[in-house]
Amino acid sequence: MKAEKIPDIIVGRLPIYLRALQRMADNGLKTTSSQELGERVGISAAQIRKDISQFGDFGKQGTGYSIEYLLNKLREILKVDRVWDVVLVGAGDMGHALVNYQGFKNRGFRIAAIFDADKNKVGRKVGEFVIEDAENLVEKVKALDVKVAMLTIPATAAQAVAEKLVQAGVKAILNYAPISLNVPDHVKVQYIDPSTHLQRMTYYL
Amino acid sequence: MKAEKIPDIIVGRLPIYLRALQRMADNGLKTTSSQELGERVGISAAQIRKDISQFGDFGKQGTGYSIEYLLNKLREILKVDRVWDVVLVGAGDMGHALVNYQGFKNRGFRIAAIFDADKNKVGRKVGEFVIEDAENLVEKVKALDVKVAMLTIPATAAQAVAEKLVQAGVKAILNYAPISLNVPDHVKVQYIDPSTHLQRMTYYL
Repeated sequence: MKAEKIPDIIVGRLPIYLRALQRMADNGLKTTSSQELGERVGISAAQIRKDISQFGDFGKQGTGYSIEYLLNKLREILKVDRVWDVVLVGAGDMGHALVNYQGFKNRGFRIAAIFDADKNKVGRKVGEFVIEDAENLVEKVKALDVKVAMLTIPATAAQAVAEKLVQAGVKAILNYAPISLNVPDHVKVQYIDPSTHLQRMTYYL
Repeated sequence: MKAEKIPDIIVGRLPIYLRALQRMADNGLKTTSSQELGERVGISAAQIRKDISQFGDFGKQGTGYSIEYLLNKLREILKVDRVWDVVLVGAGDMGHALVNYQGFKNRGFRIAAIFDADKNKVGRKVGEFVIEDAENLVEKVKALDVKVAMLTIPATAAQAVAEKLVQAGVKAILNYAPISLNVPDHVKVQYIDPSTHLQRMTYYL
């Protein structure tokens, strides 16, 4: 099925399809069409058919897609048919919000540990977690064998912490710090920066 | 300068350049090269030269770019040479984190009002703001003449609130609710969903 690599641009749309299909399933729907899915996600039916055909032959002409089948396939392709442990570095407001965020459940992720460099925070609790000392980051992350991290720390500290995470074996970083990270090619980074996202829209206003 | 429309893909990179240049300026740098900027943001020097040439003729061969000049031009193009008022809908953990977020300052945005549908929250304070009743959203947003909004509410409520915002004249929505929004073509939406961002990376693990 994954004989050929799926282009990045398509990989980027698959989580959007997965999220919409999950919602349909939660609402009790059993089948859908590229038309209906397209309306939900704001992508053309033709594009959806093309994207989905990249990784196999789903759905029969005229009968649409089985939501359950497509969900399972997408989870398998995106490797969220399992649960990934995630370490969170930064126990500030954003870190707290992520600990309390309900949107990781059933989507392939669970927070495994939280770190902060502020000695006044170390030992305190955030939700069910005790904040650990960022000094022990490399050792602890190695011991936990975690491959995914979220960074919610100031920009000034982000590069150094990212390097520690890479050293500890982390392969994917979701970076909330408003700075671009330099990491080896085998490490993936995604960025969440509300100002950057807003600036992408103000151009059009 | 903006005789021709800049392609979306380039518009998406400009806030990244702006952020890196701002950081260089904060560190006291006066000039930079496409090479240096490229290393900071993880984009090739050739791509940066091409992107920047889209909107004018900056920098002289061999002397590099004036950071100040490029900053001003990018701010002008992205329309963040002014400050946009932003309404925030949803006074939960993420809403609180955004109110306390330092990353809007000097980047073109300031929160102007916060709304929540929960009557128990209405009237309470978040930072310097008193939470307002989401029932009055349309009227208040119209009165404030705000064009930009951030949604930090549950997925189930997001579409209805987005429609109210559009009705009130909002043209750009940064949506933290994990659901795709259906809005008219003239309204821009950007999405922040940590699970979706993480799933874009697990594919490669």
